[in-house]
Amino acid sequence: MPIPSISQVRRTLIVPHGKPFDLAARDTGDRSLFEDKENAKTSLKKDAAVINELKDRLYAGKKRSVLVVLQGMDTAGKSGTIKGVFADTTPLGMEVKAFKAPSTNELARDYLWRVHDAVPRKGHIGIFDRSHYEDVLVVKVRGFAPPEAIAERYAQINAFEKHLTENGVVIVKCMLNVGYAEQGIRLQERLIEPHKRWKFNPADLEDRALWSDFMAAYETALSRCSTRHAPWYVIPSDSRSRRNAMIARLVRGALEDMDLEWPDPGHDAGDFTIV
Amino acid sequence: MPIPSISQVRRTLIVPHGKPFDLAARDTGDRSLFEDKENAKTSLKKDAAVINELKDRLYAGKKRSVLVVLQGMDTAGKSGTIKGVFADTTPLGMEVKAFKAPSTNELARDYLWRVHDAVPRKGHIGIFDRSHYEDVLVVKVRGFAPPEAIAERYAQINAFEKHLTENGVVIVKCMLNVGYAEQGIRLQERLIEPHKRWKFNPADLEDRALWSDFMAAYETALSRCSTRHAPWYVIPSDSRSRRNAMIARLVRGALEDMDLEWPDPGHDAGDFTIV
Repeated sequence: MPIPSISQVRRTLIVPHGKPFDLAARDTGDRSLFEDKENAKTSLKKDAAVINELKDRLYAGKKRSVLVVLQGMDTAGKSGTIKGVFADTTPLGMEVKAFKAPSTNELARDYLWRVHDAVPRKGHIGIFDRSHYEDVLVVKVRGFAPPEAIAERYAQINAFEKHLTENGVVIVKCMLNVGYAEQGIRLQERLIEPHKRWKFNPADLEDRALWSDFMAAYETALSRCSTRHAPWYVIPSDSRSRRNAMIARLVRGALEDMDLEWPDPGHDAGDFTIV
Repeated sequence: MPIPSISQVRRTLIVPHGKPFDLAARDTGDRSLFEDKENAKTSLKKDAAVINELKDRLYAGKKRSVLVVLQGMDTAGKSGTIKGVFADTTPLGMEVKAFKAPSTNELARDYLWRVHDAVPRKGHIGIFDRSHYEDVLVVKVRGFAPPEAIAERYAQINAFEKHLTENGVVIVKCMLNVGYAEQGIRLQERLIEPHKRWKFNPADLEDRALWSDFMAAYETALSRCSTRHAPWYVIPSDSRSRRNAMIARLVRGALEDMDLEWPDPGHDAGDFTIV
């Protein structure tokens, strides 16, 4: 099996713009892109090296930036993606932002205020571990905001993301689609494995009990906010290695499309004499 | 040659607290710790893996943080250190902050305001590419602040760093000590090599012309701000691989001294049933 092309990965995983979308029809265990696990690992390794190289050019240019949005239920692998896809990416020019429950200071502003503040600086790859989408996911499911306010947010988010893309930010949005059964296995691991126990949060079980509500909220958010400027990709995430390989293809694709060159410093070597 | 122990590296490179200090006596090309370049590379590789592992524990604990301060003349290798020492460190739990000339907004506050704002969050390793020491280095050499104000800053910086260490921040300060001749070679490289040309800034030549003033300012700053809670280390930096190996030893040492354990989540596996 050859490594699937970037455009093949995109076509397979994208949420269509302006069309009906059925999240349940997306198989969380789909292996069609990477049947062979070793193939996934090989692909990831190659892409990780290219990502690191292009990241350095992005950093040198300091003109544009890349924002990788990671959303998913608990255990879907947001942290694992950061560690896996960017394992070969040096921290120079990287920004990771984990969104937690908003602080009092953040709640004193509109919900996009803290998100705008965390947009990656020019020249950087920013990774959002959760994002403004929480404001139409957990906020909706748990009723933290009035339904009529939430109903307005999809268009607001689309406008915000359009603004960012028009100002040099390339957005890669990945929904890490883990299955209910697989989440159960992973939560169990978190109860037992010494280096994972700290990750277990009893509140995760409350979200698990609301699984179908969350899936409905995801379906609406993905469908309404998969735009031409910032499409959503649904990543089958029951397999960690395949998940990482697919996301790496998308990140590499975003960077390659930017045609990043080492910037022209505007001078010639002969203009200066080093003494 | 065995790999030098962490305490040996510290003893060799530390700036003594409260004693006379002669920066010129520190050989920028010193190879006594790593005579053999391959030995340096082997040591770095081992330390990088340990740093990544301990970084994950630091991140899990979210109680303390590590601040690596990198100072040095242009081309000394601040970016190279970040890319070399942390090549195997995933971006999760890392924060890199490059200090540039202060903005109008930053100049409206005291010089430590923006530095305090950039202190790594609990659980994170923060790297400062330049730092508050610029306020007693370039600011002093170029006269951007009155001498009497600068004279007060050493004690202010010591008090600030003491405050941080008392509040859970472990500080590792490295002065990347590059020689005048080696800087000349590296500036020449930046004029010619395609992937380095963007780094060349004509203003670097102005700083180079003020070399001895900068060395005097460094000597004062290192001497007066090498404290028990936050000592300075002078890293011979004419050799990139040895520089990285030495800094990696210091960073690993700082993390090991913290006795980081996976945090106790405060519950047992039997407390929960995953359905």
